[in-house]
Amino acid sequence: MPYDFKSNLNIKDDHLFIGDVDANKLAEEYKTPLYVIDEQKVRSNYQKLYNAFSSKYEDLHMCYAAKANTSLAVMKILEDEGSYIDAVSPGEIYTALLAGFTPDRIVFTGNNVTDEELLYAHQAGVMINLDSISALERLSKIEGTEGKEISIRVNPMVEAGHHEHCITGGPKSKFGIKEEEAVEVYQKAVELGFKPVGMHSHIGSEILESEPFMLAVETMMDIAGRVHKEAGIDFKFLDFGGGFGIPYEPTEDELDLEVFTTDIIKLFREKLEEHDLGSPAMYIEPGRFLVGNAEVLLTRVNTIKNSYRKFAGVDCGFGTLLRPTMYGSYHHIVVANNMNAEDVEEIDIAGNLCESGDLFARDRMMPELKEGDLLAILNAGAYAYSMASQYNSRPRPAEVMVNGDQVDVIRKREKYSDLFNGQQVPVRLLK
Amino acid sequence: MPYDFKSNLNIKDDHLFIGDVDANKLAEEYKTPLYVIDEQKVRSNYQKLYNAFSSKYEDLHMCYAAKANTSLAVMKILEDEGSYIDAVSPGEIYTALLAGFTPDRIVFTGNNVTDEELLYAHQAGVMINLDSISALERLSKIEGTEGKEISIRVNPMVEAGHHEHCITGGPKSKFGIKEEEAVEVYQKAVELGFKPVGMHSHIGSEILESEPFMLAVETMMDIAGRVHKEAGIDFKFLDFGGGFGIPYEPTEDELDLEVFTTDIIKLFREKLEEHDLGSPAMYIEPGRFLVGNAEVLLTRVNTIKNSYRKFAGVDCGFGTLLRPTMYGSYHHIVVANNMNAEDVEEIDIAGNLCESGDLFARDRMMPELKEGDLLAILNAGAYAYSMASQYNSRPRPAEVMVNGDQVDVIRKREKYSDLFNGQQVPVRLLK
Repeated sequence: MPYDFKSNLNIKDDHLFIGDVDANKLAEEYKTPLYVIDEQKVRSNYQKLYNAFSSKYEDLHMCYAAKANTSLAVMKILEDEGSYIDAVSPGEIYTALLAGFTPDRIVFTGNNVTDEELLYAHQAGVMINLDSISALERLSKIEGTEGKEISIRVNPMVEAGHHEHCITGGPKSKFGIKEEEAVEVYQKAVELGFKPVGMHSHIGSEILESEPFMLAVETMMDIAGRVHKEAGIDFKFLDFGGGFGIPYEPTEDELDLEVFTTDIIKLFREKLEEHDLGSPAMYIEPGRFLVGNAEVLLTRVNTIKNSYRKFAGVDCGFGTLLRPTMYGSYHHIVVANNMNAEDVEEIDIAGNLCESGDLFARDRMMPELKEGDLLAILNAGAYAYSMASQYNSRPRPAEVMVNGDQVDVIRKREKYSDLFNGQQVPVRLLK
Repeated sequence: MPYDFKSNLNIKDDHLFIGDVDANKLAEEYKTPLYVIDEQKVRSNYQKLYNAFSSKYEDLHMCYAAKANTSLAVMKILEDEGSYIDAVSPGEIYTALLAGFTPDRIVFTGNNVTDEELLYAHQAGVMINLDSISALERLSKIEGTEGKEISIRVNPMVEAGHHEHCITGGPKSKFGIKEEEAVEVYQKAVELGFKPVGMHSHIGSEILESEPFMLAVETMMDIAGRVHKEAGIDFKFLDFGGGFGIPYEPTEDELDLEVFTTDIIKLFREKLEEHDLGSPAMYIEPGRFLVGNAEVLLTRVNTIKNSYRKFAGVDCGFGTLLRPTMYGSYHHIVVANNMNAEDVEEIDIAGNLCESGDLFARDRMMPELKEGDLLAILNAGAYAYSMASQYNSRPRPAEVMVNGDQVDVIRKREKYSDLFNGQQVPVRLLK
């Protein structure tokens, strides 16, 4: 069933509302480009996913994949909801701790981590999920890690994702240890003095149906079964990663959570029994699913150009939202001041950077656009601000959080002076 | 003729040197990842290109395309060399002014500019190169712009570039006005009260031979001729943009500057005469050519992984250097502590971000790599730090400038606290 964006938006008198606030008022008051996140949407996304899983398997830890959106206010909301954190760097561990997550609610899964980073994670007291034999060995050399509980990431040879860059399982992936080495690596972990209590895998992102995820669960459970049997490991948790998708294009379906969680948990329970794995906690790592559709990027049309194609030029570019340029990702775009207008023509929606690839949409059916129109780029909550740069010396935008009729700035708009943070010119060049 | 990277590097006793400084010492002292720019290389690149052109046509303005590398210290060097600036945003105008460029040395070529940005550029007193009829009209409404000298960007239907994202001329391009509208637009500019004195075009990037650039010069000169004849415009300058390439892969040739500039200037002079255009200044806008090969990114191998492929994992990712992931760009990589080792095997060189596309090289022939090895990613001077992000909550790296045996930090390494600049949490969430 195609996804109807409009019926899932809040529209009053032709205007887009975020919570109870007119997007056009937000744009006037806080200027554009502007990221606007809806607190209640984050909360309801969390609760929806949590309830769907935990109603079927109680010992569920939902570890928010912080890299999707590390705004401290967003982290705070998820802390308040009871979430756990999937952190991929020391900076994310730091951010999570700052947001009030206790170390026991943080799982650190780094890739190509340094000794210093392993030490940092160890000192932070978070669960370390090791991505390589190298990291396992190097962690064992750090003082005080003897007897430490750890987890290991396996590469389950199952791949899924919306873009080649985001397939994190399978033969080309840099992540995890080979599945056929799993027993040996867990044995080695024990020899090194660790207490392995978890297994982790993650197959990709933007998964919108049960099948690829089922295959991943099945594969990992079979690996865990082997490790339990042959290496004698008793698992306290099994972490299946994330990848729960959201519809970006009108042609896409929403993930049917009831079907999805029923399928997954049924399989999970069967496999627990088959491999005599007891009743470990199930960890999942949703990112996009929790925050993706909770945020929009507001940007104003400043230029209509009839060149060899027709362009609507807006006041931000791929430095503000990288996904369309980097992955060719589709983001649905609506006219926040003219929500009921019919689509009438194909147009390119172009950013303001000096690069041809700086387009938010190519040949997109849109209402007739005018200079001054306010566009809302939807699904800008995940992998959006967190990937922003200052390319072309464009300061990063502001971000506000809406809660009902309340609006708070959670990131101030950067100024030109912010481009020079940390910069210093050798004095000889100033003479 | 293939480009021999090693013979163009400074190697002593198996170690890579930047200027007179051992890259390994830099990495120890300033940590990794570390951007290292060689002041003298920037200067010599500038002088080489400037002399090649100006020896053949004296009235040459070399406008450094600041977006390639906006580090203030780099801007200062080019200011000192006598460069002009190609600025693409108000932030770049601000940066150039801060670096000591006077407004008459700055050309502002924005794309999809707002009224506020046009006002900013007008107040800054820089030459404004208008990219659309919309911008022309909107500028004319700003007080005090009557009689103002301006330039107009045309889209010459010639395309060249290393990646689809970087082809800036031709039918799909968002830049400039259609060439067949040029006469009309210049006439309109006059009607609006402007004094058009310049024309600009830019066809793409990474051009390594005369031909595409010759075609662009020819096309734009013919357009300028028509505009001169039919709209009566006397050009003070003709701006051919940039795009001068550098070899990234060993299979690529260097641009033969003597041949290139001889070809270009000969054609330029012929066309000036043919169209009776007098002797306007020639503007060119090199970016990559001036800074690209002057900088390396030092990153240390922390993980060797034998998975289904062999990986060397390093301590930075595409947040630090985006080009390989975003454009699939090749960057040559050398082992800074083992410069004379033979290439023996194919390996993937992987970054430390949690995304499969985070690779600096796939199937790259390299010497046998060991954990602790220091890699130097070459040609990291252009579109490198300027595109950096904090994705995965990884603070941006430090940048040092080497001048002979002198080393200065020109960008301090960011700290975790820098991830929270400008962030504030609504108080209700802190209760």
